[in-house]
Amino acid sequence: MAKRKYSIGVDFGTESGRAVLVDVLTGKELSASVYKYSHGVIDEALPVEGRLVRLEPDWALQDPEDYIRTFKRTIPAVLKESGVNPADVIGLGIDFTACTMLPTLGDGTPLCVLPDYRRNPHSWVKLWKHHSAQPEADKINETARKMGETWLDRYGGKISSEWFFSKTLQILDEAPEIYTAADRLLEAADWVVWQLTGVETRNSCTAGYKAMWSKREGFPCDDYFAALDTRLEHVIDQKMSRQIRSIGDRAGNLTAQAAKWTGLKPGTAVAVANVDAHVSVPAATVTGPGRMVAIMGTSTCHMLLGAKEQSVPGICGYVEDGIIPGLFGFEAGQSGVGDIFAWFVDNAVPPEYYTAAKKQKKDIHALLEQEASLLKPGESGLLALDWWNGNRSVLVDVELTGLLLGATLATKAPEIYRALIEATAFGTRTIIESFEKNHVSVNELVTCGGLPEKNKLLMQIYADVTGRELKVTASKQTPALGSAMFGAVAAGKSEGGYDSIFEAAPKMARLKKETFKPNGSAQKVYDQIYADYSILHDYFGRGANDVMKRMKQLRTGYKSGDHDN
Amino acid sequence: MAKRKYSIGVDFGTESGRAVLVDVLTGKELSASVYKYSHGVIDEALPVEGRLVRLEPDWALQDPEDYIRTFKRTIPAVLKESGVNPADVIGLGIDFTACTMLPTLGDGTPLCVLPDYRRNPHSWVKLWKHHSAQPEADKINETARKMGETWLDRYGGKISSEWFFSKTLQILDEAPEIYTAADRLLEAADWVVWQLTGVETRNSCTAGYKAMWSKREGFPCDDYFAALDTRLEHVIDQKMSRQIRSIGDRAGNLTAQAAKWTGLKPGTAVAVANVDAHVSVPAATVTGPGRMVAIMGTSTCHMLLGAKEQSVPGICGYVEDGIIPGLFGFEAGQSGVGDIFAWFVDNAVPPEYYTAAKKQKKDIHALLEQEASLLKPGESGLLALDWWNGNRSVLVDVELTGLLLGATLATKAPEIYRALIEATAFGTRTIIESFEKNHVSVNELVTCGGLPEKNKLLMQIYADVTGRELKVTASKQTPALGSAMFGAVAAGKSEGGYDSIFEAAPKMARLKKETFKPNGSAQKVYDQIYADYSILHDYFGRGANDVMKRMKQLRTGYKSGDHDN
Repeated sequence: MAKRKYSIGVDFGTESGRAVLVDVLTGKELSASVYKYSHGVIDEALPVEGRLVRLEPDWALQDPEDYIRTFKRTIPAVLKESGVNPADVIGLGIDFTACTMLPTLGDGTPLCVLPDYRRNPHSWVKLWKHHSAQPEADKINETARKMGETWLDRYGGKISSEWFFSKTLQILDEAPEIYTAADRLLEAADWVVWQLTGVETRNSCTAGYKAMWSKREGFPCDDYFAALDTRLEHVIDQKMSRQIRSIGDRAGNLTAQAAKWTGLKPGTAVAVANVDAHVSVPAATVTGPGRMVAIMGTSTCHMLLGAKEQSVPGICGYVEDGIIPGLFGFEAGQSGVGDIFAWFVDNAVPPEYYTAAKKQKKDIHALLEQEASLLKPGESGLLALDWWNGNRSVLVDVELTGLLLGATLATKAPEIYRALIEATAFGTRTIIESFEKNHVSVNELVTCGGLPEKNKLLMQIYADVTGRELKVTASKQTPALGSAMFGAVAAGKSEGGYDSIFEAAPKMARLKKETFKPNGSAQKVYDQIYADYSILHDYFGRGANDVMKRMKQLRTGYKSGDHDN
Repeated sequence: MAKRKYSIGVDFGTESGRAVLVDVLTGKELSASVYKYSHGVIDEALPVEGRLVRLEPDWALQDPEDYIRTFKRTIPAVLKESGVNPADVIGLGIDFTACTMLPTLGDGTPLCVLPDYRRNPHSWVKLWKHHSAQPEADKINETARKMGETWLDRYGGKISSEWFFSKTLQILDEAPEIYTAADRLLEAADWVVWQLTGVETRNSCTAGYKAMWSKREGFPCDDYFAALDTRLEHVIDQKMSRQIRSIGDRAGNLTAQAAKWTGLKPGTAVAVANVDAHVSVPAATVTGPGRMVAIMGTSTCHMLLGAKEQSVPGICGYVEDGIIPGLFGFEAGQSGVGDIFAWFVDNAVPPEYYTAAKKQKKDIHALLEQEASLLKPGESGLLALDWWNGNRSVLVDVELTGLLLGATLATKAPEIYRALIEATAFGTRTIIESFEKNHVSVNELVTCGGLPEKNKLLMQIYADVTGRELKVTASKQTPALGSAMFGAVAAGKSEGGYDSIFEAAPKMARLKKETFKPNGSAQKVYDQIYADYSILHDYFGRGANDVMKRMKQLRTGYKSGDHDN
């Protein structure tokens, strides 16, 4: 029998980075280590000496040196904890939040480490949730619509303020000197791979989902960029690259310096960078069409594979090679899920339930779940629209707001809690039906993230509402496992790994035995309620009654000082 | 100067009866006394000896002996406390909840005091909120519609299960032996006046609002009653009376026995009975058209006078001589007001606000009012439909339910509290506009009841939303004062009182100096939000989308065991 081989996946999250060391043959996770970024999310002031540099609202930055520290701390730790010989670690893969991007010199040096630029906020890493580039996003969308750019359809007709060129254009608008000084503009995901391998590579996932690139058409043409700003005309050739490497490729080999940081052997295979949500798909055993992966936490991300190019209205984006090489990867999402339940317990649950939870030594969510599970479908008489944080998919409208209907003087908190869970399940069903209407089939759901672990009632409701079986990934660190899988694929069979993710997935990824199957009679009631959800969804979401927008404008008007009474 | 004269008003409420002794010249309240009914609201089991007689859900009874005890306890107490000589008390008036009715023998003996009937729930007083006669109300409405009965229009097209003939028909349906034994069927209001005077009288207020009587047309014809049930054909002539006495008349003189109960002089003038809400109108200084009286508590009752007969769609009823002799009295209502705020604090306010209220030594409502008053109109971004307890006026539909729209992850409890207050104000405005559209003008609002005393924010919001000045009655016991006023009118000028309520009101009724005037800029914002309230009101309330009824049916179905999953 051949000697056991191992692979390491590193998952760069919002607050911390996590490494997991995995057995390549079985996918067993031998050890894990987390590094909490020393500067976390930088959203108030830059972590620089001297006079304070305050940030404007909606800014969110990171320190690239925290990423290097993640490698330095976590990889030696997982090696040590597992006792694995570094020579037996054949591959390394990473995944990142996205779009999280930064400007660097031609050799990869981040501008923010240079004394000349360190006090300029635009030299730092712009985190995915940096939300101040809305005017730039508006310009990008408007210009694209005017010029009839067809790539806009791939993104449901709208580019987000979170994405690559919104952030790039903001640098150009607000700090042209930083734009000029930046030899390279790139995703942090690609930057850390560059630091590991010494070679600049760019991955097809972020290029496709965040930077308007497609395998068949490449980037938008220079004329389009020139229309945004003449200085931006040659941004791709000057500061980016037209060479995009597919997910699943080997980016390169570990350099001597990176070997020193990590304790791994120089020359170890390093995979092309990935995105946390997307890399979870093969780690959830999904490498083909028909099975939707739902990453359910504060918000939910839906990932789905298709064999053919297919535009699905209101879906965030689709990218060839974006998730699995050779397939089209579709991405959809619900912008508020766990966040809505958290809002509810913080803002609308009366003291008696907190008292009861304390008495029963239960988390407040667990108590409400317990009480809500005594109710039958529809028994609360309540129906909600799950738009507390807007609507990301199908309607793609951040101005929409939450709605609760059916309250009486007898309505109790667990009933509202259940109605909110049901509303998010109806939201998922709406996304599924949108896919199926456009010939992208969804036969079952594989779930991962925090919610499936915590809330069985929620899982059963999702099964009953969607009429589909729900499965749960066995790993609690799905993205890091996925990255380790791509590490093993980067190494290839010859070095003890796999030649493709299709070979790796059946060996390394696993699901829990327990699944959630739809209950026929519950499904019948939910079909009826869903019909009403859909009527309200379209009435308030598709322009028949824009009251939510009018009310939100009133609210926003006060916040920005439009009113004077 | 003539010797001071006094009058006593007794207000029979749901849980207790209250007497107030008033100076006839100034309306000054010298003393008050409350008797809490020994059997309160009887809604679980009859207060009888031997085997338990349980009541069905939705039943609500009272013990008529509690009413006599109210006279015996409270009138001697107010005499004693004030030191007033009984010889100087010239009149006595009473007001009651309605429709609160009972079956008696020909001499007024309640059937429930007789051993033969005491264990039959139908022999007791049916309280206004006895809600189990819905099938009978349905039959009354259906039969009236089939027969084209025009009197139905006077009640907005619908007779309530709370009203006189719904309750009468329920007795006939479920306990025909009680119906047969009952020589008389009458309002408790008229029964207590009978006990005081020895003469059976029936007042125009309850006859008009609760028993389908009108001054011009009398009761519905015998054919109609026969169509309901042949045994009911002669109910008016056999068990009721066609002699209806106007509000403001003298019912009779205090008997020797009642003088013994109360300590008053035999022969003291007793007024024709009144209803609590209606008697508050002159006590709120209103004796003519244009000024709406709003009695605001758990629910709100709106009273308005008109010179002409006028059908207003969706308004509970209008009765000539129903409130003030010679005028048409209109009654409308909102079925949930204070009840909705109470629901909210009990079911949707998180612990932090209770902690803060405790720390500031404030009632939770006072704390929320304080926080909500920091917000500007529309600043919450929330809009609600005030139908937690259905809709009593304009839509007249108990199947409607509450709605909250505009919630975001930043929504806080005081914002929802304010939105709920605003929703009830929009509900009041909808009623006002319904009157004005039908040529019954509303120039200002005079308020009384618990809410105007407690919540200044609410009062200002009502002024801003309705665009009308709000005034508040000076008395905290408006109904009892109103009854005392009618006591003084029953005595007449010759005995030291007044010859009409028009003369009594300017002397005896007073308003507070502080009023609430609409603020122009707030009004402008509320006009805009009200337009949206009206769109939602009509969309959900007038059949465009009956989702509320469908959801309520699901809920109700479970409660009654229709579902089996």
